[in-house]
Amino acid sequence: MLTRNLLSVNVPCLRGFSSAAASFLRTGDTLKLSRIFTSEDVLEYSKVSHDSNPLHFDSESARNAGFEDRLVHGMLVAALFPKIISSHFPGAIYVSQSLHFRLPVYIGEEIVGEVEATNIREQKNRCLVKFRTACFKNGAIVIDGEAMAILPAPAVEQANTSA
Amino acid sequence: MLTRNLLSVNVPCLRGFSSAAASFLRTGDTLKLSRIFTSEDVLEYSKVSHDSNPLHFDSESARNAGFEDRLVHGMLVAALFPKIISSHFPGAIYVSQSLHFRLPVYIGEEIVGEVEATNIREQKNRCLVKFRTACFKNGAIVIDGEAMAILPAPAVEQANTSA
Repeated sequence: MLTRNLLSVNVPCLRGFSSAAASFLRTGDTLKLSRIFTSEDVLEYSKVSHDSNPLHFDSESARNAGFEDRLVHGMLVAALFPKIISSHFPGAIYVSQSLHFRLPVYIGEEIVGEVEATNIREQKNRCLVKFRTACFKNGAIVIDGEAMAILPAPAVEQANTSA
Repeated sequence: MLTRNLLSVNVPCLRGFSSAAASFLRTGDTLKLSRIFTSEDVLEYSKVSHDSNPLHFDSESARNAGFEDRLVHGMLVAALFPKIISSHFPGAIYVSQSLHFRLPVYIGEEIVGEVEATNIREQKNRCLVKFRTACFKNGAIVIDGEAMAILPAPAVEQANTSA
């Protein structure tokens, strides 16, 4: 049984992930990505997650529940957050994520995912970053919450870290 | 723009989702499901989530970061929670989920997902259920947190609801 937890990973190991893609991150920096989820995305996500809730496949069921049409899985939309973080910082290790699903996401809607670095801490040779995370459609929040991730050390500018 | 949020969905609509699969839920009830994630699962999840973090595809990168091998995406493992809830209660609407990723999950490991109903509230014609959510491997917690979901009204036994 593995007893060491994810937070025990240390920076010298993480330095192995530094890449040209990694950029310096400062508190207040916001990373964004937009995506339109398709019917095929919903089908493929359902296959891999084994989640076949009728709200995602049956328009009539979704309308009976008070929605306009069938919904994109919330956890698929929320996957924008680790996607954004890891695409900027390959090798990022996810530590936590809170998710509040505020509004439904429908197939074909443009969703903008945002992560904002709110705290950057270098401690015991680790770079632990807290992010405010949110997805929007037409300016309205559809999902919000917070994430914590361990980033590759070169991702964080020394001057912006705090003990 | 849709202004009504997910919590505004009411029970008469949700009753449309009652099915033979739905069963009565009481506080303290625990639902479980085990799954072994494969290399193909990781690949398919990466395709649909667009998350191609090298920790999931490159064993050497994962080992350099201090892990035994490449990791299953944490958000894919966490998808066990809505899968468990919606398979027992088709039409369930996810409201929130917190996730703490405690231990890495490797391809081929048996993961047991559990959701325990800790609070069942019928209020303003809605059935809002809070769950303790956790995934285990060999008895150790790999992910834990809490979820809130609106369940189809017939899922909750009247005697076990509180105002």
